[in-house]
Amino acid sequence: MKKKVPEGLSPTGMFSVEQVGVIRSCYPEKFGIPRQAGLVEASEAEIILLPPYNREEMIKGLEVFSHIWVHFIFHRADHWRSTIRPPGLGGKARVGIFASRSPHRPNRSGMSAVHLKEIQKTKDGISLVVMGGDFLDKTPVIDIKPYLSYVDAIPDAAAGYSGRVTSPENIVFTEDGLRFCADYRKKTGRNLQELIEQVLYQDPRPASQRGKKHKFGMMLWDVNVSWQVTANVIEVVSVEMRIS
Amino acid sequence: MKKKVPEGLSPTGMFSVEQVGVIRSCYPEKFGIPRQAGLVEASEAEIILLPPYNREEMIKGLEVFSHIWVHFIFHRADHWRSTIRPPGLGGKARVGIFASRSPHRPNRSGMSAVHLKEIQKTKDGISLVVMGGDFLDKTPVIDIKPYLSYVDAIPDAAAGYSGRVTSPENIVFTEDGLRFCADYRKKTGRNLQELIEQVLYQDPRPASQRGKKHKFGMMLWDVNVSWQVTANVIEVVSVEMRIS
Repeated sequence: MKKKVPEGLSPTGMFSVEQVGVIRSCYPEKFGIPRQAGLVEASEAEIILLPPYNREEMIKGLEVFSHIWVHFIFHRADHWRSTIRPPGLGGKARVGIFASRSPHRPNRSGMSAVHLKEIQKTKDGISLVVMGGDFLDKTPVIDIKPYLSYVDAIPDAAAGYSGRVTSPENIVFTEDGLRFCADYRKKTGRNLQELIEQVLYQDPRPASQRGKKHKFGMMLWDVNVSWQVTANVIEVVSVEMRIS
Repeated sequence: MKKKVPEGLSPTGMFSVEQVGVIRSCYPEKFGIPRQAGLVEASEAEIILLPPYNREEMIKGLEVFSHIWVHFIFHRADHWRSTIRPPGLGGKARVGIFASRSPHRPNRSGMSAVHLKEIQKTKDGISLVVMGGDFLDKTPVIDIKPYLSYVDAIPDAAAGYSGRVTSPENIVFTEDGLRFCADYRKKTGRNLQELIEQVLYQDPRPASQRGKKHKFGMMLWDVNVSWQVTANVIEVVSVEMRIS
């Protein structure tokens, strides 16, 4: 017996999607990644286009846009859920997966608007340096589009929840930590201190952990960062090269 | 010999994507579809969720959002091009496909922000009524996400081209045309006249045809519309039921 295909369905209901690029980012692990794009402007990532999409003509004209959309696959989300508990609701109330931006969605489809900082053209191909991303390192990219503010920007769109979650603004480093950040910047050109500050301000801790006083650790680039939160202060306890 | 997979690539570079819904829209043909979402607010479409995604819990909480992102496949784009000639550049200059929003892109991936007008729950499942879409009828949907203005709206994002293309604002109907629209609205509840006006104001004609005086025809819902353009007036010549 043949299964009848409802009008408008592809015969199988499946589509094949090819990776057009790969992202190298400052977030080697999930913990610490901002909950949305645009929240941590200091997040840097490089989108490396892959053959046959790494030709200069494919991005001709992209340089006139300040922002781009990156479509990607949440490749480390290994299953989908029908409901999730968004951090903007305190981590308790459940909403449907289609009412959220969680990675644990059917098709694991992600999209982020990021600032296009630089287009690098080498003899090996093309890469795009972008700021403000929320990409896990090694994320597969399936599309790049220019951001068109005259259609994409709807500033008065209403949202009943999912406001920003933020931490105390008062972030304190140790002297060793500040010295490490300064040395790291000299060596790599990366403003690690600013990245740490912006990431912690977004409060990466799960809602269930927010009352706790213990230390938290995350990795940014190849650096381990640990911190703890008291009533009004985030204390960066240590900043050290990761031992791999 | 095994092919070495570059770091960060999925072993095959391919991902499988499943259709989660199908769109029924007022645009049965490509010609007439607005060039972006949001330009023709009167565009109505219904997104019908498909099993196993048509359960109420999957969209729980979506009703608090005024706008949603719809990810879809440009299913009628049967090949991709490395460059295209965008209408915003007069249809002459070429830009790379990643510097455009053309459907003729690798992976045929589309995304549109639309106004969520109504959530319909029936015993057969769930459908979302949306306004302002640019969807061809029967478009396959691969994801639904809430629009979050605090991250998605970047009103001052710069774009060097791709401004809006518009027609003369003066649109004239025949008396028969107006009567047809009024009758059609009584019968179907659809404001056809407003839809025609908004679609024509976006000037669906290809750039190469803009100097021409001949008649153009398009289909909206099950209605054939023909019009011609003189210097300052768009004249709607006929509005008639399509004979199928």
